[in-house]
Amino acid sequence: MESMIKSFDDLMRQASRVTPKRILVVNPGNAETFKAIADAGKQLPTSFLLVGDPEVIKEGLAQADAQRLRAEIFEAPTSARALELSIALARESKADVLMKGSVDTSTMMRAVLQETSGLRTGRLISDIFIFEFQPRKENKLIMITDGGITVAQDLKAKVDLINNAVSVAHALGNQEPKVAVLSATEFVQPALVSTVDAAALSKMNERGQIKGCVVDGPLALDNAISPEAAAEKGIRSKVAGHADILLAPSIESANALAKSTTYFAGFRLAHVVVGSKIPILIPSRADTSDAKLLSIAVGMLMSGVRWQEE
Amino acid sequence: MESMIKSFDDLMRQASRVTPKRILVVNPGNAETFKAIADAGKQLPTSFLLVGDPEVIKEGLAQADAQRLRAEIFEAPTSARALELSIALARESKADVLMKGSVDTSTMMRAVLQETSGLRTGRLISDIFIFEFQPRKENKLIMITDGGITVAQDLKAKVDLINNAVSVAHALGNQEPKVAVLSATEFVQPALVSTVDAAALSKMNERGQIKGCVVDGPLALDNAISPEAAAEKGIRSKVAGHADILLAPSIESANALAKSTTYFAGFRLAHVVVGSKIPILIPSRADTSDAKLLSIAVGMLMSGVRWQEE
Repeated sequence: MESMIKSFDDLMRQASRVTPKRILVVNPGNAETFKAIADAGKQLPTSFLLVGDPEVIKEGLAQADAQRLRAEIFEAPTSARALELSIALARESKADVLMKGSVDTSTMMRAVLQETSGLRTGRLISDIFIFEFQPRKENKLIMITDGGITVAQDLKAKVDLINNAVSVAHALGNQEPKVAVLSATEFVQPALVSTVDAAALSKMNERGQIKGCVVDGPLALDNAISPEAAAEKGIRSKVAGHADILLAPSIESANALAKSTTYFAGFRLAHVVVGSKIPILIPSRADTSDAKLLSIAVGMLMSGVRWQEE
Repeated sequence: MESMIKSFDDLMRQASRVTPKRILVVNPGNAETFKAIADAGKQLPTSFLLVGDPEVIKEGLAQADAQRLRAEIFEAPTSARALELSIALARESKADVLMKGSVDTSTMMRAVLQETSGLRTGRLISDIFIFEFQPRKENKLIMITDGGITVAQDLKAKVDLINNAVSVAHALGNQEPKVAVLSATEFVQPALVSTVDAAALSKMNERGQIKGCVVDGPLALDNAISPEAAAEKGIRSKVAGHADILLAPSIESANALAKSTTYFAGFRLAHVVVGSKIPILIPSRADTSDAKLLSIAVGMLMSGVRWQEE
């Protein structure tokens, strides 16, 4: 059992020690992607499957000074064909992590989410955002979900979103993560569905319907992550003040909260899509090369996870 | 016309120059409240109406070294009676700003929101959170609404929320604030109500149904506040990258986003409730004395606003 990963430096150390992982890149075609590939090739035990135009790929690797990368090139004349071939390779277990290159995110996710030809496992496929928070002396990784994929977040979907995030926490060595179900208040208010759902999720955890974690909610953000704020409110909870996973009540809320940690607080970040046959990375152009490398590292640690039908 | 307030230091300078304002405090009873009163008495042109137990109030003022405060004490033996008397005084226009002391926030807001005996004006009553953001060389005040009061944020309520926030922007000297209607994406997606509402609000602004501002949405947070992120997405908009007001799609989303600027980014803050007969301050115990003082200053600048029935 690996020890608990409490910082992104820990994450990189841990990922550098795993058995080599095969990263499949869909249509690599811009400098940022080649830079991320080159960084990962140097710092992490990786090999690459690069699917796209061989001329573009060779040129990109040369520009990124990555000629000595352990890489196999698969020819695909268009981005649509590259996507199709990449998903076929992933379905044949030829890769451990799937990473987006120059292909439209929504087109790629549509292909991934196809019922029969995509990368579904029977689990909900969801996005996990991870940031590093240093409230005191000690660093801590906190996850936010789901700001990227799941539009209809009803109670059933929220159970799946917790399970997916908990799987990531386990892969990062946190065997019993604390899950805060966020709302605008710590009180159950019948008119505010997010508070009622939060109570239901807490009880499902208490009854053993959600395992491998401690769930509590509703909690407002301050009560979830600040022990002082939780104490001032007199909230008695194992989770309050110490949350490892923040389940936001909607895709909009998760999206804005995650971006706030990047754009307002300036925190480092990683993000990964899980629940699919292999972890999927959908770096945005705005992501720093640091964020892309950390996301690859998370994907590598997640690649061993076998998803079971719920 | 005063100049535009771009920072909290600007705000304090501007508030120090207005005609004296009468701050009515409901049941002042703890050290933080007396500290805020004492600070405001020294730094801002204020007088106080203190409603509660005279012995407690005199002792509190002495402890806060505020014996020379311009204050009138109104005797009320219980917090319930203090609340009742305070609202009566506010209804008789005896005060310019109402501030919560030792009284339960939800009890106070229920009294304020009473249809006939409260402080309604016919406008929606909503909470405005303000933080100072320094993306580059220049400071900027950005508002988030509504993370505190409006539970059911349908399209009609969103119009009112924008109008209220725009009134605050005008009071701060920003005559045409840029309003970003937030969602998880910049695309209109039929399954995501917040994106459809955002499009409707943009069009209402274009048609002159929402005035005194420029509205655009849907926008994700990064596109709303980062010109680079907006440019990378190719979004053509007067608002994108430069938002002054962030209309979040739900009370939970606004609440978490606002708290994130405090607890993750460490930004200074103020918050005020508007749309009522006079501005209302509901400082939380976790608010710093700086936040309480800035909130009083915003309340003072808002006190001149006459709300008209929509």
